[in-house]
Amino acid sequence: MTTSRPRQLHLNAFLMNAGHHDAAWRHPGTQPERVTDLRYFQHLARTAERGLLDSVFLADGLALFNKVRHNALGGFEPLTLLSALAAVTERVGLIATVSTTFNEPFHVARKFASLDHLSGGRAGWNIVTSGTVAEARNFGQDEHLEHRLRYERAREFVEVATRLWDSWADDAIVLDRERGIYADTDRVRAINHRGEYFGVEGPLNVPRPPQGHPLLVQAGSSEDGKEFAAQYAEAVFTAQQTLADGQAFYKDLKSRLARYGRTEDQLLILPGIAPVLGSTEAEARALEQELTDLQVPEYGLAQLSGMLGVDLTGLPLDGPLPELPEERDINGNKSRFTLVAELARRDGLTLRELIARLGAGRGHRVFAGTPEQVADQLEEWFTQGAADGFNVMPPLLPGGLEDFVDHVVPILQRRGLFRTEYTGRTLREHYGLARPDNAAPAPAS
Amino acid sequence: MTTSRPRQLHLNAFLMNAGHHDAAWRHPGTQPERVTDLRYFQHLARTAERGLLDSVFLADGLALFNKVRHNALGGFEPLTLLSALAAVTERVGLIATVSTTFNEPFHVARKFASLDHLSGGRAGWNIVTSGTVAEARNFGQDEHLEHRLRYERAREFVEVATRLWDSWADDAIVLDRERGIYADTDRVRAINHRGEYFGVEGPLNVPRPPQGHPLLVQAGSSEDGKEFAAQYAEAVFTAQQTLADGQAFYKDLKSRLARYGRTEDQLLILPGIAPVLGSTEAEARALEQELTDLQVPEYGLAQLSGMLGVDLTGLPLDGPLPELPEERDINGNKSRFTLVAELARRDGLTLRELIARLGAGRGHRVFAGTPEQVADQLEEWFTQGAADGFNVMPPLLPGGLEDFVDHVVPILQRRGLFRTEYTGRTLREHYGLARPDNAAPAPAS
Ligand SMILES: Cc1cc2nc3c(=O)[nH]c(=O)nc-3n(C[C@H](O)[C@H](O)[C@H](O)COP(=O)(O)O)c2cc1C
Ligand SMILES: Cc1cc2nc3c(=O)[nH]c(=O)nc-3n(C[C@H](O)[C@H](O)[C@H](O)COP(=O)(O)O)c2cc1C
Repeated sequence: MTTSRPRQLHLNAFLMNAGHHDAAWRHPGTQPERVTDLRYFQHLARTAERGLLDSVFLADGLALFNKVRHNALGGFEPLTLLSALAAVTERVGLIATVSTTFNEPFHVARKFASLDHLSGGRAGWNIVTSGTVAEARNFGQDEHLEHRLRYERAREFVEVATRLWDSWADDAIVLDRERGIYADTDRVRAINHRGEYFGVEGPLNVPRPPQGHPLLVQAGSSEDGKEFAAQYAEAVFTAQQTLADGQAFYKDLKSRLARYGRTEDQLLILPGIAPVLGSTEAEARALEQELTDLQVPEYGLAQLSGMLGVDLTGLPLDGPLPELPEERDINGNKSRFTLVAELARRDGLTLRELIARLGAGRGHRVFAGTPEQVADQLEEWFTQGAADGFNVMPPLLPGGLEDFVDHVVPILQRRGLFRTEYTGRTLREHYGLARPDNAAPAPAS
Repeated sequence: MTTSRPRQLHLNAFLMNAGHHDAAWRHPGTQPERVTDLRYFQHLARTAERGLLDSVFLADGLALFNKVRHNALGGFEPLTLLSALAAVTERVGLIATVSTTFNEPFHVARKFASLDHLSGGRAGWNIVTSGTVAEARNFGQDEHLEHRLRYERAREFVEVATRLWDSWADDAIVLDRERGIYADTDRVRAINHRGEYFGVEGPLNVPRPPQGHPLLVQAGSSEDGKEFAAQYAEAVFTAQQTLADGQAFYKDLKSRLARYGRTEDQLLILPGIAPVLGSTEAEARALEQELTDLQVPEYGLAQLSGMLGVDLTGLPLDGPLPELPEERDINGNKSRFTLVAELARRDGLTLRELIARLGAGRGHRVFAGTPEQVADQLEEWFTQGAADGFNVMPPLLPGGLEDFVDHVVPILQRRGLFRTEYTGRTLREHYGLARPDNAAPAPAS
């Protein structure tokens, strides 16, 4: 734990095809022809590691959606890609998104245990419940499981996964060649779970992971989402547009922890930021405008239709938004719906303006400026109770990540806000989070 | 295709914890403390690659069974580990076992497509139906799906996976920055599958893999297993004890191909061999005896109970086998049951002798001798119509694989039976198998 050191911020690099801006792939600075090339991601992960970042992160969805006509897509399954990256990096954490709605806990616990062993304790799991009916339709379901039930399933899923990781005591392997005893099987136990959604006998067929459990990350900000995070998550990604919103979310979520017997430092909050960097402010703004000019309106409209649960096709781009549903009627991503609806209302945006505002960050905060100005923003949110660190979403890759590492990180370091070397080996150590004890396997009964 | 070159054999390295012998981990030449260490497997894969082998292969089971008390277990999930190995090897093929009984085709198609992209076309899938009730109990089922129905599910599973890989035309990505068109979505199609076991709308969210489809491998030798292989498999692993058995299996399986409109060279048969190598025959036999002496009888008895579907605990080791069930009553691995039962009957073995015979290969052929003698055996099976190549199962790792590569491979090369350099890049090219065309996505309708 970092108790004696001054509080420092944490940085995650959110990796995304040619970059987070939806027109990134059209920009001459990107390399969309490499999004299915391992070496491209190897370069990104090594760049993050060169910048001493805590982790890299891959999002995931289980359907193609309508996005591939006008946007680049590599489509790597996150655990597969991060396993490959584990072999060519040394320190940086590796956070994979896996849905609890369309998976089985035995497989997921096993794969994360494998990644954690492979990487020497660098695995993290972004636990998502998946938001679209298109995903359900790839798994034999016509309708998407209701939002509340998805989180209910997620809770049981995480409970089972946790018990599976704990089904081996840390010291179960005795490796006594002389007596022919490899593992003390009194210290490897079935879990005999029978619940609402899952029946899992256990034990897991992999020894306990180096980190005990992989780091548990969560990224839903609805009521159910926050409650789930308060109970299980150790890091939270969230989209927050303003300092005030960020502070309110931060306070809200941290205040829920005590209910689960947890302290505020056991959960880190990392709002997203899409930094559009330039060596002058004018240069940064020009880049932002250049990207806006490259947007394909049909694409933006389709994305927006998905977020808002309303078909916007054919509406005039320079007109206002139509009447929107209420959050309670949204069965997808509730918090993102509300954020986008608020943003449009607050700033009185036309469809075209809203599409431009969402282009770089899909609802995450976008900030265009110099490295100094970006560092100021991060410092402000970090010191004013809105963030424990940031989910960095470069609009263009690899350039935006290289610029962040080469120009923003050194400023944060000079200000004493960010590490100047890795002091730990595991992802938990980077985030200053304890390795969970294994309460489960008692001595022989 | 290798039509103009003389026929050469294919070699796969079957990687297994501290080695294939069940007492390998007790032998001073092995490194059981490294079975959860990526660098250990990296060394094994690179050794196979140094030997110009076609592929490395990982088996898999979805339950711990009772084996961890007396045998070393790393437990890496195969796709995770092979993805990591993809990043640190260049040429060798990577074959992962994944069960069709406890998975969803969308996930599996996606992960293999990812591995195939990551590795530049080196992915192979060993399609298994899983044989034990312990596995079912980790997936909410009290009983194991019936053998015949498992294969029925496997057929539908492979059909769906194949259609998902084909849901993108090879040339779907147009990457037209100017016009803002990334993919020609007329060349990316839903599959709209609704079958007995699965409902999958598609398309896949990953572009078509470099190999078109990963190499399809199969390893069941029952009637249903052979029929499945004849329809779908491109390489088959099989356990055969004698040349005559190997020839009969080879002829049987190849003769089934025509029924599915396939030619004999579209499926390669690779019997397993566990070579116990020594610089003299006496040395090899001494090593074999040394390993037998290290066996833990309780472990052998438990393994044998599993294979035979009879609880043998407590029976006298120096007595005969009890009455056995019929193959039709076995719901696990039918072909292995029959092989072991035959072996015991034919040679009139006691339990102890049978455990010794199965120690190195679990029913696969074991051969102790010099590199020259091992090469003679391989040549004989290869030229006498019993094999297109071999699944090499070193009793001890890493030493047994190093010895095979350093001492057996050069002999095979001198005899013109094995490649002296990689001529292809992909796993299919190594095996001389064509890249499947994509019949599916027609031009815009
Ligand atoms: C930074 C960030 C990344 C996310 N990544 C994914 C993702 O990869 N896959 C996914 O299905 N949902 C993702 N989400 C969505 C949430 O995990 C969550 O499922 C969604 O917000 C619905 O939850 P809510 O209704 O509680 O907000 C992400 C959200 C954020 C803020
Ligand atoms: C070399 C070899 C490797 C195998 N690997 C696996 C494996 O990793 N996982 C598994 O469940 N079955 C494995 N099997 C078993 C078969 O794939 C098959 O499921 C089993 O033999 C039952 O089929 P059968 O009754 O048709 O023989 C393997 C068999 C062989 C010969």
